[in-house]
Amino acid sequence: MRLRNKPWAEEFLSQHPEIVIQNPEQYKGNWQKAFGNDHPLHIEVGTGKGQFITGMALQNPDINYIGIELYTSVIVSALEKIIDSNTPPNLRLLKVNGADLEKYFQKNDVSRVYLNFSDPWPKTRHAKRRLTHEGFLKLYESILIDNGEIHFKTDNRGLFEYSLISMSEYGMLLKYVSLDLHANMPEDNIMTEYEEKFSAKGQPIYRLESQFISGK
Amino acid sequence: MRLRNKPWAEEFLSQHPEIVIQNPEQYKGNWQKAFGNDHPLHIEVGTGKGQFITGMALQNPDINYIGIELYTSVIVSALEKIIDSNTPPNLRLLKVNGADLEKYFQKNDVSRVYLNFSDPWPKTRHAKRRLTHEGFLKLYESILIDNGEIHFKTDNRGLFEYSLISMSEYGMLLKYVSLDLHANMPEDNIMTEYEEKFSAKGQPIYRLESQFISGK
Ligand SMILES: C[S@@+](CC[C@H](N)C(=O)[O-])C[C@H]1O[C@@H](n2cnc3c(N)ncnc32)[C@H](O)[C@@H]1O
Ligand SMILES: C[S@@+](CC[C@H](N)C(=O)[O-])C[C@H]1O[C@@H](n2cnc3c(N)ncnc32)[C@H](O)[C@@H]1O
Repeated sequence: MRLRNKPWAEEFLSQHPEIVIQNPEQYKGNWQKAFGNDHPLHIEVGTGKGQFITGMALQNPDINYIGIELYTSVIVSALEKIIDSNTPPNLRLLKVNGADLEKYFQKNDVSRVYLNFSDPWPKTRHAKRRLTHEGFLKLYESILIDNGEIHFKTDNRGLFEYSLISMSEYGMLLKYVSLDLHANMPEDNIMTEYEEKFSAKGQPIYRLESQFISGK
Repeated sequence: MRLRNKPWAEEFLSQHPEIVIQNPEQYKGNWQKAFGNDHPLHIEVGTGKGQFITGMALQNPDINYIGIELYTSVIVSALEKIIDSNTPPNLRLLKVNGADLEKYFQKNDVSRVYLNFSDPWPKTRHAKRRLTHEGFLKLYESILIDNGEIHFKTDNRGLFEYSLISMSEYGMLLKYVSLDLHANMPEDNIMTEYEEKFSAKGQPIYRLESQFISGK
């Protein structure tokens, strides 16, 4: 209930600057400063309620993570989850639009981009909003290290088919594809909220890892 | 029954030289001669009982087709089907091993390669036998026109995942992917025997179209 109370939510976020990054522009090109170390930085665009990014941060203490989420009403749940998990020191949240990544990150700032159960935008006229559209791939490439990777999971068949082609047309290399992740679940898989929901319904979960090829 | 009678089968094949190509080496670089026209040539490797290639030949009279099958006991069924379909003039069979394509075809002879429900060879040590292994891709490229295409259908998840990655690593472009062909059946889809069998069981049929990029 209280999550729908916007002023409360904004206040809650601002009370936790150790987790929710304030003025992220200041760290552009200098994210080591935000974390106090120079570990690789992995970001998730569209973090939702934060189960995946929190699990990843706990599983991999030598990697820094930032969960990026557009909506206050959603990111407060991620913040609550992080506090309940004793605030892993290698994890931050950023309440911004993924379309604005270049404001906060520059080339070589990020080693990997995670996309999980991104909004499918099934209508062709909305294709540009899909987080695997050419425009977004260009954006990710512009902030990633050379040969940086995208790791993508979804239950949405149409979005996955589209993404395979979009990435291929962009000149990316496919490194891993699973068309039923839960049939051969990798031991280190961390489920997202949507993944739990859709896999419980028996729907296949699709997953891929792709890589930008430098010098293209 | 009689199909298992090998001498009978060999005789039946040799009685139909208008369909089953004799001495295919003679047409290398000169397949127009076999068909009496210069229409594009599409081949299917592992034709089985020939339902797909016969349907395609009837559907597309301005394209020449060759169904390639290794086993006498199987190709006789394709021959029977072709005769029962009044022997479309744009269709031939070739009883050879797909691994030997270079003996019968040279660069620019073929415009498209079809692979349907190819044997999956699930064990890693047999990966080289998969018809989408790098070695076979190289073979197809060596007989295809520039920017020639592979069209591939299968029910086998592991083989499809493998093929996406193998083609990407080869530098091919993915042009089309369906992860459930029968959910949005293209109007002009011609079913193979295996496709009928597996889709009747409710298994998803995977399909892709990929393209070699010339100058790579
Ligand atoms: C379908 S949910 C999936 C949430 C979570 N990743 C999961 O798998 O459970 C998509 C999330 O992405 C967020 N989102 C969509 N577009 C975004 C954008 N441009 N920038 C940041 N977040 C975005 C939405 O607000 C939503 O929380
Ligand atoms: C699983 S069946 C599929 C048949 C048919 N394409 C279909 O979809 O119904 C595979 C076929 O490929 C043939 N085949 C396997 N390896 C081959 C090769 N190297 N050259 C030619 N044919 C081959 C097999 O004999 C078999 O008939």
